[in-house]
Amino acid sequence: MIRIHRGDLELYCCNVFLALGLSQKEAEDSSQILVSADARGIASHGIARLWRYANGIKGGIMQAGIRPLVLRQTPQSLVLDAQGAMGLSLSKETMGSVIAMADNHGIGFASVRNSNHFGIAGFYSEMAARKDMIGISMTNTAALGVPTFARDAMFGTNPIAVSVPVSGDRMFTLDMATTCVTRGKIEAYELEGKSIPSGWAVNSFGVGTNDASRLLEDMLFQRGGGLLPLGGEGEDFSGYKGYGLAMLVDILTAQLSGGVFGKHVMDSQQTSARVCHFFGAIRLDLFRDVCDFKKDMGRMLDDIATSRVAQGENKVWYAGQKEHESEEESNRLGVPLSDKIVEKIKEIGKDLHVAFPED
Amino acid sequence: MIRIHRGDLELYCCNVFLALGLSQKEAEDSSQILVSADARGIASHGIARLWRYANGIKGGIMQAGIRPLVLRQTPQSLVLDAQGAMGLSLSKETMGSVIAMADNHGIGFASVRNSNHFGIAGFYSEMAARKDMIGISMTNTAALGVPTFARDAMFGTNPIAVSVPVSGDRMFTLDMATTCVTRGKIEAYELEGKSIPSGWAVNSFGVGTNDASRLLEDMLFQRGGGLLPLGGEGEDFSGYKGYGLAMLVDILTAQLSGGVFGKHVMDSQQTSARVCHFFGAIRLDLFRDVCDFKKDMGRMLDDIATSRVAQGENKVWYAGQKEHESEEESNRLGVPLSDKIVEKIKEIGKDLHVAFPED
Repeated sequence: MIRIHRGDLELYCCNVFLALGLSQKEAEDSSQILVSADARGIASHGIARLWRYANGIKGGIMQAGIRPLVLRQTPQSLVLDAQGAMGLSLSKETMGSVIAMADNHGIGFASVRNSNHFGIAGFYSEMAARKDMIGISMTNTAALGVPTFARDAMFGTNPIAVSVPVSGDRMFTLDMATTCVTRGKIEAYELEGKSIPSGWAVNSFGVGTNDASRLLEDMLFQRGGGLLPLGGEGEDFSGYKGYGLAMLVDILTAQLSGGVFGKHVMDSQQTSARVCHFFGAIRLDLFRDVCDFKKDMGRMLDDIATSRVAQGENKVWYAGQKEHESEEESNRLGVPLSDKIVEKIKEIGKDLHVAFPED
Repeated sequence: MIRIHRGDLELYCCNVFLALGLSQKEAEDSSQILVSADARGIASHGIARLWRYANGIKGGIMQAGIRPLVLRQTPQSLVLDAQGAMGLSLSKETMGSVIAMADNHGIGFASVRNSNHFGIAGFYSEMAARKDMIGISMTNTAALGVPTFARDAMFGTNPIAVSVPVSGDRMFTLDMATTCVTRGKIEAYELEGKSIPSGWAVNSFGVGTNDASRLLEDMLFQRGGGLLPLGGEGEDFSGYKGYGLAMLVDILTAQLSGGVFGKHVMDSQQTSARVCHFFGAIRLDLFRDVCDFKKDMGRMLDDIATSRVAQGENKVWYAGQKEHESEEESNRLGVPLSDKIVEKIKEIGKDLHVAFPED
């Protein structure tokens, strides 16, 4: 593992995007969002994905410099067809519009269809929370999740993020996939040759499986089987709740925008998965004095911090706390990257004649 | 099990509430909401709770005829102090105000503090969905749920309900506790002398337990231990997601209204738990033509209905489908009540000289 100065890494990433043909603004925003994932310790959504964006742009699946089509607009709502734009920069811009709506009219919502991968959902919800709003961000993703009692993938990992500001410069950020785990976790187990725990996935018969390799193959060739929703298999641990939440994300992202939903969301040779997003901002002063609210939020997090820890454990965390602590460390010491990822992203830069920092 | 005509049961329940001193409107609304739970097969939230309301009203913990205090109001938001009113009728009235806000201005939200048990969350979200809106309803509840890696209860079962209309007179209603299971389920296992599955609860050391009796006792005397969030124990099955959702409910219900949150929510001799609610309505036509939306929602539910079923299972359900099928049956054949519950609610009526239907 090495650490690279955040600004240097953003600049490198930005130069790669520029060389790929993105506009200055698209390149800057996209780099900032990708690197923020690595800074928070969410490497799966960071610059490890740079090659995917590079391939997407080169292959014409992600469109540089394209403007979204406005499908409907009111003082508090916006519906966009992204027309295959870069999901990262488009989402930051859209969240900016949502925040402006909330600034002027208290509340703003946007639903976006036909976009591309937008990185970490929490990036956008936090933009609103920094303006003393409740921030909301969701996306649907390629279908990998199997409903309770079914055997085929009918929804994605469909993450939900909600952020709320807290006194003392803290923030509550819940940023969660609605499946129990994501495909990345299955891949990590396969790499190590480990069995996956019961409750994470079902095989092509819709029956619980521990076989990571077989599962990944079945998912790849769409033979059936896939990830279980939050709550696991069957009804005993309430897997239907995670399944319901995943559908809710599909409703707000794809149904509100007239986009692609459920099992129809998948990558192909011709197109990207055409994923859909949802963004929301609700001004806190619609309800309460913002200082009082943040102070009470602080008391709530203090309650958690001072609560008794389970036998054998060290700490009780609140949503987003680990990520924020990692980010602070990355800002001081540099953004951590595995040797493997560094090698991979150097490769991309070499092809495009972009110099890697410190090289 | 016997079945009683829905109208007769509502009338009986209404007469009981009137005899207890509720106003005509409070009594009618409260009966309607309680009986709707039984009609949907959710007996735990139905008239089995009548004695609790009766005791609450008699003991002065629930206030008949009291008007809520308006703490803040804008064209799209409302914050109320319920002053210990009946949670059922107050919530129906508040959702009515939220729908009126959405009718006039597209979106309406309300946060309510210092209330009482409001029955099934889905009743209120469905009020909005019937008006072609996205309906949202939440409540915090007495603290019973233990955060990931902790040992004390820091949040309630904190349900979230979201409803959306669908073509063909169908409706998507996700109505879910954010804990893995509720206390009622633990009590049912204890009654049958069965061990509870690992992943439902932790003991007073914060360690997984299968002992239902001991758990219920520990929860009652607040010795530590309690229900696990959706996703179960530790991090392997993402229990921190259910824990984050439970806190989110506390934020929207209690923090937005300045009410009682987290571990502080508990019943005592002097007061009720003073629970807090949140209601929302968002007009669908802010985003899309409503007919198109409902048609696409119909396609989504048809996809689910026609998807391949797991080996050994019979059907893939969508959120709310089971409850709606039960309700239809109850409307035709009468509302199902267990003999034990009938006996119990007859008792309440006898004391108040209210005749039970068909007696």
